[in-house]
Amino acid sequence: MLNFDFYAPARILFGKDEEKRAGELLKPHAKKVLLHYGGGSIKKSGLYDAVAASLKANGVAFAELGGVKPNPRLSLVHEGIALCKKENADLILAVGGGSVIDSAKAIAMGVYYDGDIWDVYEEGKSIEKALPVAVILTIPAAGSESSGDTVITNEEKQLKYGYGSPRLRPLLSIMNPELFFTLPENQLANGAADMMSHVFERYFTSTTHTDLTDGLCEAVLKTLMKNALLAKKDMKDYDAWSELGFAGTVAHNGLVGMGRRQDWACHNMEHELSAVYDVAHGAGLAVLTPGWMQYVYKDNMGMFVQFAVNVMGVEGSYRDSEAIIQEGVARLRDFFNKMGLPATLSELGIGEDRLEEMAKKATGEAFGRESPIGGLKKLYWQDVLNIYRLVK
Amino acid sequence: MLNFDFYAPARILFGKDEEKRAGELLKPHAKKVLLHYGGGSIKKSGLYDAVAASLKANGVAFAELGGVKPNPRLSLVHEGIALCKKENADLILAVGGGSVIDSAKAIAMGVYYDGDIWDVYEEGKSIEKALPVAVILTIPAAGSESSGDTVITNEEKQLKYGYGSPRLRPLLSIMNPELFFTLPENQLANGAADMMSHVFERYFTSTTHTDLTDGLCEAVLKTLMKNALLAKKDMKDYDAWSELGFAGTVAHNGLVGMGRRQDWACHNMEHELSAVYDVAHGAGLAVLTPGWMQYVYKDNMGMFVQFAVNVMGVEGSYRDSEAIIQEGVARLRDFFNKMGLPATLSELGIGEDRLEEMAKKATGEAFGRESPIGGLKKLYWQDVLNIYRLVK
Repeated sequence: MLNFDFYAPARILFGKDEEKRAGELLKPHAKKVLLHYGGGSIKKSGLYDAVAASLKANGVAFAELGGVKPNPRLSLVHEGIALCKKENADLILAVGGGSVIDSAKAIAMGVYYDGDIWDVYEEGKSIEKALPVAVILTIPAAGSESSGDTVITNEEKQLKYGYGSPRLRPLLSIMNPELFFTLPENQLANGAADMMSHVFERYFTSTTHTDLTDGLCEAVLKTLMKNALLAKKDMKDYDAWSELGFAGTVAHNGLVGMGRRQDWACHNMEHELSAVYDVAHGAGLAVLTPGWMQYVYKDNMGMFVQFAVNVMGVEGSYRDSEAIIQEGVARLRDFFNKMGLPATLSELGIGEDRLEEMAKKATGEAFGRESPIGGLKKLYWQDVLNIYRLVK
Repeated sequence: MLNFDFYAPARILFGKDEEKRAGELLKPHAKKVLLHYGGGSIKKSGLYDAVAASLKANGVAFAELGGVKPNPRLSLVHEGIALCKKENADLILAVGGGSVIDSAKAIAMGVYYDGDIWDVYEEGKSIEKALPVAVILTIPAAGSESSGDTVITNEEKQLKYGYGSPRLRPLLSIMNPELFFTLPENQLANGAADMMSHVFERYFTSTTHTDLTDGLCEAVLKTLMKNALLAKKDMKDYDAWSELGFAGTVAHNGLVGMGRRQDWACHNMEHELSAVYDVAHGAGLAVLTPGWMQYVYKDNMGMFVQFAVNVMGVEGSYRDSEAIIQEGVARLRDFFNKMGLPATLSELGIGEDRLEEMAKKATGEAFGRESPIGGLKKLYWQDVLNIYRLVK
C-alpha cells in the first residue's frame, strides 16, 4: 500500500424528499445562491419549483443560470462567473448531473481567479479559493457530487480537460433516487459505464498489498452491474437506483483508490473522443474499456484474473489464466451489450480519419509535451492509436 | 435502503513518516495545541520527540497532558478542560489510541460547555461547539480517529457512556503503520475484535436492499481477519498493519452503516463489563459477540447465512441454514481463539454475582428508564442476562 491523503468532506443527504430540505441545509452557508442547471427537465419534473420553494421558505435568495450541456462548455462558465460577481452569490447550487456540477465548480473557482479560468485547466495552475458548491443530483454517473474534480470542454479549441482540487469538494450533496426515475434509458447505461470506469481506473493497479481497497472496488463494481440491470428492467425501481446512486458516489470520492497507483488511461482516451465528437462520456468508456483490457492484460495477468474471478464470477483452473481473463472481458462486453451500450467507435459515429490526431492529443504529443498515459501500463500515442483501432 | 446523512470530513494522512508532518499540517489551524497522550510509551518510542520537534519547527506552541488510561476517565477530562482554558489552547492533538482520542474529544467539548461535561454523556445534551481535534494514531482499534464518537468512564459512578456529534469528527488523523510495530500482541487482538465489532454492529440488520454496504462490510471484515492473523505472525508486517489501520477507519467512519438499521447491542453490553470490571473493550466484545449471535440468529436466519457464506467462507446446502450458521459462528470463535482472545466472562475475571446488575444498567432498567437495546432483535434486561450467562 502506498502513502495516501484521503479527504472527502462532502456531506451526503440521501433518500426520499431530501431535495425539499435544500433551503434549510443551505441557509447557514449562503445568503444568495446561483442556481445552476441544464436543460428544461428540472422545470418539467417539478424539481425546479420544489427547490425554489425551499430556498424561498428559508430566506435564501437566488439568481439562476440554466443551459448547461453534456460535456459542459467554457463559454457558459464565463457567463456564470460574470453573473456570480454581479449578483454577489456566495454559493453555487448545482441541480443536475456531472456536467452541471463540473460547470458549477469551474464558476466557483473563476469568481476568485484573476484571468481566464481555462488557464487552470490547460496549465494545471493551482487555485487558492473557490465559492462553496452544493449539489442536488439528478443522475448518478460522474461522481462529481463528492469529488474535487471538474472537466470542461473548450469548444473553440476542441479540448476537454480535467482539473482537481480539494477546494472543489462539494459542501453537501442531496441525492433522492426518485429523481432518477424519469431519466432516459441510455443515460442509465452511460452512467453505469462511467461509474464502473471510475472504479476500474483505480482497481487495475500494479500496487501490491491492497486487500481492503481491492474488496471495496469489487463490492462497488458488483453492486453497479447488478443494479444497473435491475433499473433497466424497471426504471422506477427505487432500491436499484439507491444502490446506483450511493455506489456512484463511493466509486469517485477517492476512497477505493487510496494507497493504489491508479490508471486513468481510459478516461484520458475517452476525453479526446468527447472533445472532438461530443459523444456521451459513458458510451465512449464502454467502447474503450474492453479494448484497453485486451491491450494491456498480458503484462498484468494476476490483476486481470482477479477481476475475472472476483468481479465477473468466472470459475476455472488458474492454470489457464488466459481463458479466465478472456471470459472475464467477454462477460464485461456482454454486460455493456445488455445495457444497450455500443461496442465500437463506428457505433458512436467515429470514423478512422481523426484517430491519430486524438491519440496524439491524449498523450500530449500533439502539443509537443509527450507524456504517456496509464498507471498500469504506460501508453504512448502509438499505443492509444492501437487501442482506438482495436475497437473501431 | 433507508434515508441517510453521511458526513466524514476527517482528513486521513496515511503512511510512512506522516507523523513528522504534524507541525506543518497543524500550523494553519492552531497557534497552541494541547498535546494529549497516555502512558509513557510514546516517550520510549521516540514518537513524543518527533511530534514535539515537528511542532516546534513550525512555530506551533504546545501544552501537554499525559496519563490517559484505557477506558478513559472523567477526572482527567476535567483536568484537561482546565488546562486548555488556562493555556488558551485552540486545538487538541491526541497522540494515542481510542482512549486518548475519546478523552481529547471530551475535553474539546468541555472547553465550551457551561457545566460538568459528564451531563452531555449521561443526559445526551447537544453541544454547540468544540475545539478541533487532530490525531496521531498509535493503535488501530476504536475508529475514533475518523468518527464523531467518544466514550468516557465516570469512575465514581461506575458508568461508561458514549456520545456522538458531527462536531467531534477529527480535523485530521495521521496514521503511520510503523507506529503499531511495538504494540503488545494482546492489543493487536483486542483491536481486531473491536474493529470487527464496529462492522458487525452495522452489518447485522433487518433493512433490505443493502447490496453496496453489505459488500463493503464483508470486504472490511475479511481484510481485518486476514491481516490480524498476518500481523500476529509478524508484528512488524507493515502491509498487514496498513490494512488493519485503513480498515479500522473505514469500519467506523459511518460509511458501511449508511442506510441500514444498525444494532449496537454488543457494544452496549460490553460497556457495562468495562465500566464495572475495567476489562479491555475488544476482549469483552470477543466474548459477547458469538453469544449474541447464538441468541439472536433464529429470528434472522438469512442475515446469518449471508455472514457465514460471504464472510466466513462456509460452503454447504442452503437447505441446511442452521448448519451453515453454526459453522459460521464456530469459525468466528476459532478466529478469536487463534488471536488469543478469551471466549468466556470467567476468562476476563468476571463472575456471576453482578451479571443482573450489568444487564439492568445496559438496558436502562437500573435507572428507571427501560429501553431495550439492539436494532436486529430488541433485547430487554432478561435477554442481556441470558446472553451474559451463555458466555459465562
